This record gives sequence, C-alpha cells and structure tokens, in this order.
Amino acid sequence: MAMTARIWVTLKSGVLDPQGKAIAGALDSLGFSGVEDVRQGKYLEVKLDAPDEAQARQDVERMCEELLANTVIETYRFELEQA
Amino acid sequence: MAMTARIWVTLKSGVLDPQGKAIAGALDSLGFSGVEDVRQGKYLEVKLDAPDEAQARQDVERMCEELLANTVIETYRFELEQA
Repeated sequence: MAMTARIWVTLKSGVLDPQGKAIAGALDSLGFSGVEDVRQGKYLEVKLDAPDEAQARQDVERMCEELLANTVIETYRFELEQA
Repeated sequence: MAMTARIWVTLKSGVLDPQGKAIAGALDSLGFSGVEDVRQGKYLEVKLDAPDEAQARQDVERMCEELLANTVIETYRFELEQA
C-alpha cells in the first residue's frame, strides 16, 4: 500500500532556538515590529510502501525515533494518508 | 491582536532535494526498505501582534516573500490563528 507521511519535528518547549531567534531578529530589521517569537522546525514528506496502515505507522514512528528526530531536544508528530 | 502563524516552506516539485535524498539513503541503510522518496522543508511558528487578521495575513505573506522562502526554488503556505 503506497502511503505518504507528513512529519513535523520541532524543538521541545523550553529548548533555546538560536535559529528562531536569528529569524526573529532579521524580521525585526526588515520592519516587522509585531513579531514576538519564532520557532523553526523540520517538515518532511515521506512516500513509503507498507503492507498496511498499522505497519506504516510503526515504520514512521521508528524512522522518527531512530533518525529524523533527536528525541532529547526535539519532539515529532506525523499524519499518514494513502498516496 | 495576538496571533500565531504556522508556515510551511517546501521545495518546488521538480527541484532536486539533496537533503531528502540523503535521508532516504540513511533510512534505507537502517532497514526501511519501503521508503520511496523523502522531501524535507521548513516548518515555522511565528507569534505576532497585529491590528487585525487581514494585516497579520499581509505581514506573514511579506515575511515569506522577503525572508523565509527563496521563492525561486521554494513555495510556502501558512495558517493563521488567534493565539
């Protein structure tokens, strides 16, 4: 079964986000004075083939745990849909 | 009005994604043989203050056009909600 996983990997709250801070600073210097905070994370789309949705869900969970997210400082969530 | 913008910045289709290719290769070497393709993009959460939603929408559009997305090779979309 061909499926697409949409995965969000974001920093856990409380973890400093230097990239987000840099973007917020750049936005401010471009004149966006209303910006209060910026958090940047990763968004991935993975096309995968799996026997069924349950197996696909397990595979994506393991992909996140083993490679896509540094679970010490990052958290992840994903959505699965048939391609 | 305090608002939160959720922004996705992704490569336009047809644009080579070396990062995605590297991730696909790493997943394959970890034993995820069912992975066909991986595309990686940016996901940002921006907390901003604006007089109203229309102004917030304009501001976020401009943020994407001027800084957050390289519109030659990337496309963006966003959702706005009251914080």
